[in-house]
Amino acid sequence: MRWRYILNTVGVLTLFFGGTMLVPLLFDFFAGDVSLLPMVEAMGVTLFCGAALVLLFRCEKTETISQREGMAIVALGWTAIGLFGSLPFYFSGPNFLFVDACFESISGFTTTGSSILTDIEGLSRGLLVWRSFIQWLGGMGIIVLSIAILPFLGVGGMQLYKAEVPSPVPDKLKPRIRDTAMILWKVYALFTVIETLLLVAGGMSFFDAINHAFTTLPTGGFSTKNASVAHFDSAYIDGVIIVFMLLAGINFSLHYQLLRGKPLALWKDSECRFFLAMCLILTLVVGFDIYRTVTPDVGQSLRFAAFQVVSIVTTTGYATADYELWPAMSQIILLLCMFMGASAGSTGGGMKCLRIMLCFKYSYKELFSMIHPRAVTRIKIGGKPVPEEVVRSVLGFLALYMALFSIATVLLAGIGVDFVTAIGAVAATIGNIGPGFGMVGPVENFAQIPYWGKWLLSWCMLLGRLEIYTLIILVVPEFWRK
Amino acid sequence: MRWRYILNTVGVLTLFFGGTMLVPLLFDFFAGDVSLLPMVEAMGVTLFCGAALVLLFRCEKTETISQREGMAIVALGWTAIGLFGSLPFYFSGPNFLFVDACFESISGFTTTGSSILTDIEGLSRGLLVWRSFIQWLGGMGIIVLSIAILPFLGVGGMQLYKAEVPSPVPDKLKPRIRDTAMILWKVYALFTVIETLLLVAGGMSFFDAINHAFTTLPTGGFSTKNASVAHFDSAYIDGVIIVFMLLAGINFSLHYQLLRGKPLALWKDSECRFFLAMCLILTLVVGFDIYRTVTPDVGQSLRFAAFQVVSIVTTTGYATADYELWPAMSQIILLLCMFMGASAGSTGGGMKCLRIMLCFKYSYKELFSMIHPRAVTRIKIGGKPVPEEVVRSVLGFLALYMALFSIATVLLAGIGVDFVTAIGAVAATIGNIGPGFGMVGPVENFAQIPYWGKWLLSWCMLLGRLEIYTLIILVVPEFWRK
Repeated sequence: MRWRYILNTVGVLTLFFGGTMLVPLLFDFFAGDVSLLPMVEAMGVTLFCGAALVLLFRCEKTETISQREGMAIVALGWTAIGLFGSLPFYFSGPNFLFVDACFESISGFTTTGSSILTDIEGLSRGLLVWRSFIQWLGGMGIIVLSIAILPFLGVGGMQLYKAEVPSPVPDKLKPRIRDTAMILWKVYALFTVIETLLLVAGGMSFFDAINHAFTTLPTGGFSTKNASVAHFDSAYIDGVIIVFMLLAGINFSLHYQLLRGKPLALWKDSECRFFLAMCLILTLVVGFDIYRTVTPDVGQSLRFAAFQVVSIVTTTGYATADYELWPAMSQIILLLCMFMGASAGSTGGGMKCLRIMLCFKYSYKELFSMIHPRAVTRIKIGGKPVPEEVVRSVLGFLALYMALFSIATVLLAGIGVDFVTAIGAVAATIGNIGPGFGMVGPVENFAQIPYWGKWLLSWCMLLGRLEIYTLIILVVPEFWRK
Repeated sequence: MRWRYILNTVGVLTLFFGGTMLVPLLFDFFAGDVSLLPMVEAMGVTLFCGAALVLLFRCEKTETISQREGMAIVALGWTAIGLFGSLPFYFSGPNFLFVDACFESISGFTTTGSSILTDIEGLSRGLLVWRSFIQWLGGMGIIVLSIAILPFLGVGGMQLYKAEVPSPVPDKLKPRIRDTAMILWKVYALFTVIETLLLVAGGMSFFDAINHAFTTLPTGGFSTKNASVAHFDSAYIDGVIIVFMLLAGINFSLHYQLLRGKPLALWKDSECRFFLAMCLILTLVVGFDIYRTVTPDVGQSLRFAAFQVVSIVTTTGYATADYELWPAMSQIILLLCMFMGASAGSTGGGMKCLRIMLCFKYSYKELFSMIHPRAVTRIKIGGKPVPEEVVRSVLGFLALYMALFSIATVLLAGIGVDFVTAIGAVAATIGNIGPGFGMVGPVENFAQIPYWGKWLLSWCMLLGRLEIYTLIILVVPEFWRK
């Protein structure tokens, strides 16, 4: 472990991140917003700390990093940026306690979308832009992480994606990250622009439109309105956001292939088919369930069901209806969706469809091999056999996810929240969704969670976002041995 | 698949089961109980059906059966006995609908202990004995199933126990079952006698004592009292029952070794150590949690915590306190305990400690192999390496367990119960515990569950009891192919 190198890299990331604060800063400057000063202070502190890290831990440039170093950089980098991102909130006034500022910032960077704000509309426009912008940056980070970094670190079955993104220099990690990132960020930026234009065309103000586009593509879910997307009450806007949530929940390398003129790329990918099919089936089931109980109108039922199902499955977390008023079956389906999540290689969180698919196939294979004990069967995804170690890695991931979910739920209940809230809040944060159940439902927020509960949930958000392994590995003693 | 042979064997089981009805029949006869006639009718029908099956499907005797035939016999046999066991209830009068009689009987045979009775004490003494007796028989069945049959069928990692029970004829399945069964049943019967004597010594009537012994050893949990064990309100009785629940939650082949003069047998077994350690740790945690909130007395807190934790972990389901009035942390711990369950090879249900242990070790191994990608590591239990296929089998089992739990919860909520009840009722039945949460908490019962919900939960009880695979394999199309 070259700690100098790791801290130097985290310093570079922090410097870069400090630079991005220029975007909301310019916005504040031209709009003459009250959040100008806090933003300048935050930018100053961030740049100073970044520069300090870089200068204190000067080291040789290198083209190769070890797996362990990669994990340490990812875990420390994400945590550092989450903490520095809280500064604009913290400096903006006494309304933000440090824990609340950190919770909001980490929720943004991990593209979770859980909020401690009771009155979002009371925030200055500069801070609203900052909230959305950090989600957008977080989404960019996730695309690189899940498509270019994690597959090389061998995290939880992400190796499956190793060979799928074109790269001019396949052996070296750093140039590959750079090239892959540039390609996929272009797709990401393109979608953001298109969604903004479509939302403006639907009657949204440009400010609201760009903020919502900033938080749809990373499947973040921060809204500029207290009532989330329900505020606009427009079937057109719901439709546009549903489409872009779905796009954000699909592996971005498929979008790249699609834009390069392979129209069947989405259809040919079995994870993408599974993801879209689940969204469709669950929309129909939930739609029927609420049609027979709370909204006796077919169109409205389907609209609300589609929005809520897609919002939860893609782990965005926008709301157009309070699903806590829905019948128990729909609520349990949504709770389970929080575990499933979107596609691997998308900006969505949760366990990911790919892993769920592998797990289904694995269980079936086990049943099959009990019937035919001598038959040799291999699990295939999209026609290609999946290596044994990937399957093992995925199953280990799922087990660890459930174990950490259980532990965090017990701890949160011990800190002092009720049964349903504990389950809902942990599921919503570890899966990077946003709203949960109970006290933290879609029309409530995380303000009432006790102090240590907010730190615990912040950690859950990071845990989920960094695919469990990357963060949990830091607490394994073996990791620290020479 | 030799269907004649399978149905013939099920017929033999049914005949044998009809014969066991003589026990409550004699009791009814000498006590002059009102349930004499229903019991005679039930015995007549059962013996008739058993004889009909045996005669209709006459076939050659054979010493070897295939894996598939073994599974079909287990699944059909358990279902048939569950249904025939309902007859004494059903014939006893209009209070028992058919679905309720079946629910109660299947709950008995699977040693679950969930009840649809709102007034247990209003039942005739004959039916009370029948309720306890079927749990005792179910426990006998489970011991054979889990130690002698499932390991040979390769179900969910039970292969681990293959070599652990001494057998004079190691190659043939049938003699092995016979010998192993006889040895372990003696242990089981011995414990039942001792517990009865100890309970009588504590001031219980002989009737209550034998009924509670009949339902402690199979970790069943049916009580003769509406308030369950809380009725007796005696620290001595709580203590005796805690000890016997713990004994029932330990692999019975360890007890056999213990009685054969190996005093360290329990200590040397890593699963047993894990099981006892979990019971101890969780008792302390829950005890502390209720001490600071509901029962401000150290002794009382520990007594109630120990009883409830051991009752749930061993999947017995007796109650001395209403844990739904406890703080959320304790409730969530108990909910998680429902998934864990007792040791493999015991009469307890749930996922089993052995599988949870393997899963923990597996996750750690995955973390380890991310740090040292080239290191070859093997999972060990008790110092011995676990074969790859056993690990795979266990992980497949856990995945299937969670998947079926999820599906059953959605269906039960769809049938019309609330969020918490759906989760609690399915966890309690698939884990063969007894009481759950919400509408089916420890001081309530399953009477209010809708009609189809009762059938669904009956199926969950069988599913959990037959270690998932044995029952679910019947719905895999591949099973039915030639």
